[in-house]
Amino acid sequence: MSGNTFGRIFTVSTFGESHGSALGCIIDGCPPGIAIDSNEIQAELDKRKPGQSDVTTPRKEDDQVEILSGIFEGKTTGTPIGLIIRNTNQQSQDYQHLKDVFRPNHADITYQAKYGLRDYRGGGRASARETAMRVAAGAIAKKYLHSQGVHTQCIVTQIGPIAADTMDWDTKNKFNFADPSKVNELDALFEELIKEGDSVGAKLQIVVRGCPAGLGEPVFDKLDADLAKAIMSINAVKAVAIGDLEDTSKRGSVIRDEMSKTGFKTNHSGGILGGISSSDDIVIGFTIKPTSSIRKAADTINTKGEDTEISVTGRHDPCVGIRAVPIAEAMTNLVLMDHFLRNRAQCGDVEQVLPFNNNE
Amino acid sequence: MSGNTFGRIFTVSTFGESHGSALGCIIDGCPPGIAIDSNEIQAELDKRKPGQSDVTTPRKEDDQVEILSGIFEGKTTGTPIGLIIRNTNQQSQDYQHLKDVFRPNHADITYQAKYGLRDYRGGGRASARETAMRVAAGAIAKKYLHSQGVHTQCIVTQIGPIAADTMDWDTKNKFNFADPSKVNELDALFEELIKEGDSVGAKLQIVVRGCPAGLGEPVFDKLDADLAKAIMSINAVKAVAIGDLEDTSKRGSVIRDEMSKTGFKTNHSGGILGGISSSDDIVIGFTIKPTSSIRKAADTINTKGEDTEISVTGRHDPCVGIRAVPIAEAMTNLVLMDHFLRNRAQCGDVEQVLPFNNNE
Amino acid sequence: MSGNTFGRIFTVSTFGESHGSALGCIIDGCPPGIAIDSNEIQAELDKRKPGQSDVTTPRKEDDQVEILSGIFEGKTTGTPIGLIIRNTNQQSQDYQHLKDVFRPNHADITYQAKYGLRDYRGGGRASARETAMRVAAGAIAKKYLHSQGVHTQCIVTQIGPIAADTMDWDTKNKFNFADPSKVNELDALFEELIKEGDSVGAKLQIVVRGCPAGLGEPVFDKLDADLAKAIMSINAVKAVAIGDLEDTSKRGSVIRDEMSKTGFKTNHSGGILGGISSSDDIVIGFTIKPTSSIRKAADTINTKGEDTEISVTGRHDPCVGIRAVPIAEAMTNLVLMDHFLRNRAQCGDVEQVLPFNNNE
Amino acid sequence: MSGNTFGRIFTVSTFGESHGSALGCIIDGCPPGIAIDSNEIQAELDKRKPGQSDVTTPRKEDDQVEILSGIFEGKTTGTPIGLIIRNTNQQSQDYQHLKDVFRPNHADITYQAKYGLRDYRGGGRASARETAMRVAAGAIAKKYLHSQGVHTQCIVTQIGPIAADTMDWDTKNKFNFADPSKVNELDALFEELIKEGDSVGAKLQIVVRGCPAGLGEPVFDKLDADLAKAIMSINAVKAVAIGDLEDTSKRGSVIRDEMSKTGFKTNHSGGILGGISSSDDIVIGFTIKPTSSIRKAADTINTKGEDTEISVTGRHDPCVGIRAVPIAEAMTNLVLMDHFLRNRAQCGDVEQVLPFNNNE
Repeated sequence: MSGNTFGRIFTVSTFGESHGSALGCIIDGCPPGIAIDSNEIQAELDKRKPGQSDVTTPRKEDDQVEILSGIFEGKTTGTPIGLIIRNTNQQSQDYQHLKDVFRPNHADITYQAKYGLRDYRGGGRASARETAMRVAAGAIAKKYLHSQGVHTQCIVTQIGPIAADTMDWDTKNKFNFADPSKVNELDALFEELIKEGDSVGAKLQIVVRGCPAGLGEPVFDKLDADLAKAIMSINAVKAVAIGDLEDTSKRGSVIRDEMSKTGFKTNHSGGILGGISSSDDIVIGFTIKPTSSIRKAADTINTKGEDTEISVTGRHDPCVGIRAVPIAEAMTNLVLMDHFLRNRAQCGDVEQVLPFNNNE
Repeated sequence: MSGNTFGRIFTVSTFGESHGSALGCIIDGCPPGIAIDSNEIQAELDKRKPGQSDVTTPRKEDDQVEILSGIFEGKTTGTPIGLIIRNTNQQSQDYQHLKDVFRPNHADITYQAKYGLRDYRGGGRASARETAMRVAAGAIAKKYLHSQGVHTQCIVTQIGPIAADTMDWDTKNKFNFADPSKVNELDALFEELIKEGDSVGAKLQIVVRGCPAGLGEPVFDKLDADLAKAIMSINAVKAVAIGDLEDTSKRGSVIRDEMSKTGFKTNHSGGILGGISSSDDIVIGFTIKPTSSIRKAADTINTKGEDTEISVTGRHDPCVGIRAVPIAEAMTNLVLMDHFLRNRAQCGDVEQVLPFNNNE
Repeated sequence: MSGNTFGRIFTVSTFGESHGSALGCIIDGCPPGIAIDSNEIQAELDKRKPGQSDVTTPRKEDDQVEILSGIFEGKTTGTPIGLIIRNTNQQSQDYQHLKDVFRPNHADITYQAKYGLRDYRGGGRASARETAMRVAAGAIAKKYLHSQGVHTQCIVTQIGPIAADTMDWDTKNKFNFADPSKVNELDALFEELIKEGDSVGAKLQIVVRGCPAGLGEPVFDKLDADLAKAIMSINAVKAVAIGDLEDTSKRGSVIRDEMSKTGFKTNHSGGILGGISSSDDIVIGFTIKPTSSIRKAADTINTKGEDTEISVTGRHDPCVGIRAVPIAEAMTNLVLMDHFLRNRAQCGDVEQVLPFNNNE
Repeated sequence: MSGNTFGRIFTVSTFGESHGSALGCIIDGCPPGIAIDSNEIQAELDKRKPGQSDVTTPRKEDDQVEILSGIFEGKTTGTPIGLIIRNTNQQSQDYQHLKDVFRPNHADITYQAKYGLRDYRGGGRASARETAMRVAAGAIAKKYLHSQGVHTQCIVTQIGPIAADTMDWDTKNKFNFADPSKVNELDALFEELIKEGDSVGAKLQIVVRGCPAGLGEPVFDKLDADLAKAIMSINAVKAVAIGDLEDTSKRGSVIRDEMSKTGFKTNHSGGILGGISSSDDIVIGFTIKPTSSIRKAADTINTKGEDTEISVTGRHDPCVGIRAVPIAEAMTNLVLMDHFLRNRAQCGDVEQVLPFNNNE
């Protein structure tokens, strides 16, 4: 009810402030018998952690996950899986200067208003560190979904003014960028941002391959609605789109994904029809705003309501979009896993197939 | 669990197929003592109904709401409010030809896959008629929110290629369009669409004025995440954005909504910080895809998986975005109402004010 | 959240005051493809309705159910099932004298305190009429459970001081009483109660045969905990027990349900171990308090807090336990149906069998 | 959904097996600003832990709670409170002999059936050790409820055949027994049970003093229904009653709690009317079955379905009812806390008072 639990059947409940004792989560409703060990969870976490290259924050977060329950002799038991990550790199003294001031475009002031008090150390619960547990939980969902043939991938398609011209889903570069030919251009941009203590936003795309038809609920819990919520719940995300229908000048007759006996002819609607997966690739785009906590000085107020100025001297990401990749993949997998089980609950008696002839 | 209920404390559960006996809903968790009568609900419904002008479907839907429970002597009693609308204009015979064929870009094929059977008459539960009950329920939320000084408004900002150059929130025109100077241009576009049996998409904007600080939950149920889900759950919506941060080339130093002792200097983040309302205007943009069920013939398949062609001869909206206005307002009000009560549940002991000096 | 919805996956949400326009409910999460028609629902409702014999209230309640949605061509479609029953026998003038007075041991005063106002006509939402929709919804759960070999039956085992000495599950008598040899004795008791305008309590027993192993969740949502809640939520129920373990003088060594390779040797624990069904018969006992609204005068207060006296002149049941039978069966079936789907959601990959050799 | 979360607004989600790494929980939806420290939580836990006298199991459980999040500078922050207790006394080798055998009247066999595998060490998740986190969470609810004048107390009223003749709520004895005059008799019983390796059941009573009117929801989530579920969810509880209405021979005219202008004249209904608290004392009775895992040998089967015999050599409680006292208090406080917030959410605009004149 207070928004720290995600999902309805396969649920993830997280706790933990960025500079408290630990982060943790409970994954509940997990099917029994899934083979998983802490290395597989750790591998996902390692994708998220900062300090992996010169283009993300140099802050070190060790993020060693510990499994406390729910996995026995290498398999999930069906009981709740408790995970924690100790906060080992807490330099709380770094944050004393934030005790009485509100960082612009940050949750400082809204937490203070809502709760009447706040853990001001490093953003507390509003820190992006909170997403570590989403990634850990997502690793378990991913394992099960892989066994069902469902694969999720996220990639960066634009950073600041630099847009990918190609979509290379197999490329590996420190920007997680879809167009490797733009890496030099990005390097120059980041050099400038770091020098100026500034930041930019990013656009990313998620694709889910192999999703069976039938996931999603018709009305309020449409698969696209739940995906939109999941992605929008990630820190700094401000826009989400399903498919490629944002250009409203295109006519309905042109972009309506006609069908033939071998399948859908196009996929403008992003693999979801009427809120239910169609078996085509699910395609999600989203936009991340620039990091707000930057070195460049800004006007703000303090807790007494007086004008003041702030310059966040700490270590920050010039573009948080790069590190959003594993988080977005995790959130997508959590949604799919939950809807997989929801669909099985209600429609487990139905053989769910589309009348396409895939052999032709 | 099957996605027919919206909200957590103030909940709306809907039922009804477009060509069944009736649509209905239960509004539960409503505060007692709200003065409301059926005329106020009817007034909202009347904004949504088709056939009001030559630019929406000429189909007549009477949509007379009946209050069955939960309101006594003109006031809500705190018990569940049951509403129904009888389907009086069911011409089911119109839909026999859809029994064995799947309309492209429509829920026909995904419902069939998910459930193994479907009510093919007029889209059944996937019809936009389902949204009538959202609007009815939203009328009650709206009444309470008005008493708290919270006002929600939605307007169309783009139809097909025609974008509003001005934002006139007070204008009245049959396109619900923000820029009245474009009405002639829109008339010409609609004439063409109707002639060709085609359709276009639209962009809309919602603004909420007077929302207090403190609504929304920090992590998964961020106010923006819940709004995104609410809007994305409306038929044909494919993209949602909060604030105006989609241009990623803007630097963080430029768009971070600095503060002074009298308030926020700008509102790029759309009135929500860290998932919690900041007391500034909440601003939401969204995109609606073109109507899929149009007269222009399309390739498709039938239930046997054979190739065929379809031309939806019935009555359709050239742009469903126009009629989305009251639905989007209703969904926004439902989210705000629910979060208002959620916030009161947990934080009812806190005086929730921002340290701005509004008198200066 | 306001307690008008029961279940987590197979959910029933009810609305309606006893003297409002109608009662209704939404059954959501129902598996598609269940063959059901309104006669089957009506048959269950008819078991509950008053006026069937001289030992229940002579009040006539017509209780004709109408299916509004979710069933198409004789089968559930997987979309929400909307049901209503019009209140045709509303004699609201009967209740004007209750407007300003609180009946003892009745919800009048607590509703008034909670909501600040109440629908005083016939108990409003607190009336046992509300249970009609539970019975209607239970009919659908029952149909599905029967197809899975699960059968629920409830019977009265004590009325006032008269206890059944035998448990005849097949007997039919107007008291729904397990021991037909006591019917004359019961007749004499009821004659006295009706003459005096008084009432007595009752004890009932539910047995579920054919329930598979594996239903129920380990910790908070133990099958017995959810059954206890379900039964305790029925008007006038004040005690619930699982199995026959209330005699605390029995030693653990005696009543611990030992096992052999052919099965459980005894069933003191009522078919549930650690909150999960064991495949043995589920046995539930419960106690119903005497009707509070009786003719015999009682001391009470009015809305001004003044002393007064009340005699409920209307028609009442001398023992509401008799009519609780179909309601208890319905609530039990709703719990089992919900847990059946919950179990399938999480554990659908597991073949759930006990290592008994049933062939020996 | 998998039953490891309790509550709707003030929620407690627990994890942990008795012989895994740790037990833990997340308390979510907690009001901000409650002053609490780990000593207060520890004090409640210490009441529950075994090994405190010669009449409970001599097993040592250290149960040192650690607060991981949600409490900052001595106050709750409104964010989720993460707690863990490390399992320091795990002697897993003790349980190897239970790997392939099912203890009678225990969850071993139903867990195996449900999940297809189980953590057999010490009962895993089915162990009463799980209740430690309920007690820890209950400590926070208790702190808040005390500030509202609400006080919960539980006491043992019968152990085996020995029933309390008096109700002394202030007595302190190692049996938590309401009638101190029976301590010698109980000592003799326990000596016999320990010698024989046997066990007995118990009856307990809970009373809540100072609960305001208005808590509880009318239909399915009646306060008594939610209390019944809460208590029935405690390991070994098999029966629950509200008030003292189990004697069905009492007439309605006698036990209907008449009212005068100064208040209720009696309290047979246990402080709850129509599912809503009446401001009178809430009274709950419940029954606990005898410990199943005892030294005395029993017939059972192994995982191959073969007949075998078991004698649980470990350390056990002759009567688990004694240690149920703090658990029952915790569960009661969790229900009340949750309903306090639920009531505030919906009815926060209502001044909830009964029309009694308490000054006379």
